[in-house]
Amino acid sequence: MRAIFIAVGSELLEKDRLDTNSLYVARKLREKGILMDLKMTVGDDLDNLTWVIKNAYKRAQLVIITGGLGPTEDDLTREGTANALKKELVFQEEIVEQIRSVFEKRGIQMPDINARQAFIIKGAEVLPNSVGTAPGQYIEDKSCNVLLLPGPPREMQPMFDDIFIRKIAPLSNFHIHTRCLKFSGITESETDSRISDLYSKYNNPRTTILASPGIIEVHLLGRSKKSPEENKKTTDSLAEKIKERLAEYFITEKDISFEQYILEELRSNHLTLSTAESCTGGGLGNRITNIPGSSDVFLGGVIAYSNELKMKILGVSKGILEKYGAVSKQTAQQMAQGIREKSHSDIGVAITGIAGPTGATKGKPVGLVCLHLSSLKTEQGSQKIFSGDRQVIKTRSENFCLNLIRKYLKQRKN
Amino acid sequence: MRAIFIAVGSELLEKDRLDTNSLYVARKLREKGILMDLKMTVGDDLDNLTWVIKNAYKRAQLVIITGGLGPTEDDLTREGTANALKKELVFQEEIVEQIRSVFEKRGIQMPDINARQAFIIKGAEVLPNSVGTAPGQYIEDKSCNVLLLPGPPREMQPMFDDIFIRKIAPLSNFHIHTRCLKFSGITESETDSRISDLYSKYNNPRTTILASPGIIEVHLLGRSKKSPEENKKTTDSLAEKIKERLAEYFITEKDISFEQYILEELRSNHLTLSTAESCTGGGLGNRITNIPGSSDVFLGGVIAYSNELKMKILGVSKGILEKYGAVSKQTAQQMAQGIREKSHSDIGVAITGIAGPTGATKGKPVGLVCLHLSSLKTEQGSQKIFSGDRQVIKTRSENFCLNLIRKYLKQRKN
Repeated sequence: MRAIFIAVGSELLEKDRLDTNSLYVARKLREKGILMDLKMTVGDDLDNLTWVIKNAYKRAQLVIITGGLGPTEDDLTREGTANALKKELVFQEEIVEQIRSVFEKRGIQMPDINARQAFIIKGAEVLPNSVGTAPGQYIEDKSCNVLLLPGPPREMQPMFDDIFIRKIAPLSNFHIHTRCLKFSGITESETDSRISDLYSKYNNPRTTILASPGIIEVHLLGRSKKSPEENKKTTDSLAEKIKERLAEYFITEKDISFEQYILEELRSNHLTLSTAESCTGGGLGNRITNIPGSSDVFLGGVIAYSNELKMKILGVSKGILEKYGAVSKQTAQQMAQGIREKSHSDIGVAITGIAGPTGATKGKPVGLVCLHLSSLKTEQGSQKIFSGDRQVIKTRSENFCLNLIRKYLKQRKN
Repeated sequence: MRAIFIAVGSELLEKDRLDTNSLYVARKLREKGILMDLKMTVGDDLDNLTWVIKNAYKRAQLVIITGGLGPTEDDLTREGTANALKKELVFQEEIVEQIRSVFEKRGIQMPDINARQAFIIKGAEVLPNSVGTAPGQYIEDKSCNVLLLPGPPREMQPMFDDIFIRKIAPLSNFHIHTRCLKFSGITESETDSRISDLYSKYNNPRTTILASPGIIEVHLLGRSKKSPEENKKTTDSLAEKIKERLAEYFITEKDISFEQYILEELRSNHLTLSTAESCTGGGLGNRITNIPGSSDVFLGGVIAYSNELKMKILGVSKGILEKYGAVSKQTAQQMAQGIREKSHSDIGVAITGIAGPTGATKGKPVGLVCLHLSSLKTEQGSQKIFSGDRQVIKTRSENFCLNLIRKYLKQRKN
């Protein structure tokens, strides 16, 4: 089955914007063995849009279109699809009422233009929008199904998930079994050299190693038209071998972020956390507090960017700062201890480093980061030199800090 | 003149990869008034690739293809283009010699497969590769010109720059003038309703309103075949009218983030900043510290997630917390004052709110956020109910806080 993805919106052709919805959709499709082998980005131009949709419709068995469902005159996906499929647009009064009620909940009167969002391709299933106002549409057809989704990812994703499970996944005749193993504290090339003798023996599943700063994912995609049992067995067998080989770096197989994994582990251990961040500037706190309900574990932290704050709030001593500098194991330790004591948390972690591009001094290059974990029972410090630009060094530092916590929790278990 | 961009490579359809060559090409084209209103990403599949190129060739006056010019069997752009344009591929011995000499300079013998790179579309101009081995190709044709470029940006860019100046730019007879105005403190629909009477009078420039949580951008694209002066004048005239109409919300026209704008304004006013964040959990500090050199303005902050930290570090009084609660104007004020005093900054800002999805109480819904700015001269509080999910509420709160600072700096000037 061939799927074509179309992102609609002139803003996605601007010099600093890229469609990312296709990444989300491609991943989900792939899990069911549906190949998205072409994606397109098209501006808000009716003629062009119609042409693109018409061609995709002729070519593929599934066309997924995101964006252009808003209320303004620039939003032309409904019209373009109707033209391309040679179907009528029908105005549905009950959808206007739904949109109106979304606005009323926000205490705003619905602007008249939003009524445009109630035009539906004749015969389409209307997909309710749990987050915004634009409903999606799903048109089932003999040769090709067409799915219209809103552009904002937070509106698009739940809508796609729902229709994917109900209608799209069942269209695939492949048996798919996937495993995704996450690791930290090991590089991409180290990972590859340590497991290539394992995965190269297998034609199925296909193994892919994906690296992001501080985190390595090993994806196994088992795909078979014949036996689902055999496919699962082979894939699982390779997954277990890889997990065993890299056990000390293993985080989780759950589809959650590293920070969410750590938060859940801390919660189940009834431990609280606080942070003292210098070079990451609140990045770790930000990631942790992105997770709903984090406040029972995460008590807070200090962004100790200036030396004065390090001393005044965290109690880092002037002597340590003068003798070893702000980026030192000693300062990191006092920061971690300071925030743990101030907040009465079980664990305090600290990050201090040089994220660059400026700030390097003699003996302290850009990328040097000192980290520390302080608990009632243990003090653990670490020091690394990370490569990459400012953002990458920040992210690597945050993940390295999360990995300190992971290792601490693991030791604690043993 | 219509241009279509095609990125070739199955790796660009993976879940964490995106083509970025199109951004570089689009920017250059736009400077000469050539509209790239469609871009596509296609995998290494000959049938699919041929189909895509054939359709683009029929549709556009310029087709730019990057990638798929390597030496392996996966590299099918040459073949796909030849098929689509119904032209022959010709093997050119002198190109093999050039490739061989590139390898020899590196002290390596040319692998046999690299000879594949010497197949040229009949009649194409061969574009030398100053960095790698794959030559580019430029096919001039009555209805549509086709440009084949290597995928790696460092090979693609110099080759594109050369052919762009020599052959492509002269094809354009458009003059372009753009303006981008950024606003905060106003919604997308409010913006539209307040300026639609202005921009709807203009066929040129084209006006686009782009919204992200807490920030509105108004893009004007002036495009004219006739007089560049007239085009600039019309575009600027509309831009100034819009700016005047929405003056109180205007941030900047610079191509920088809101936080960078605020940082630069603070720096030029010789003011320092500190933050006290509850619901945003370090998100504001993180954004500010993403900017290189932020440490001269930003002294640091506190992520006061727990009430204990609010009291202990920021000096929020127990009485205030008990009487008004953690999410209140009063608490926000004490947080802002507390961090300002602790850090000795000129400005202290505070954010406390309910980012959701849980945490709402009677009279305090999810999305309620209290903000405060404290300086030696002024105390300014504000309260809002933001819509959206947790992430969006966090981002809106951060931008609203940046907007408090913007307004404060503006008042200070007057």
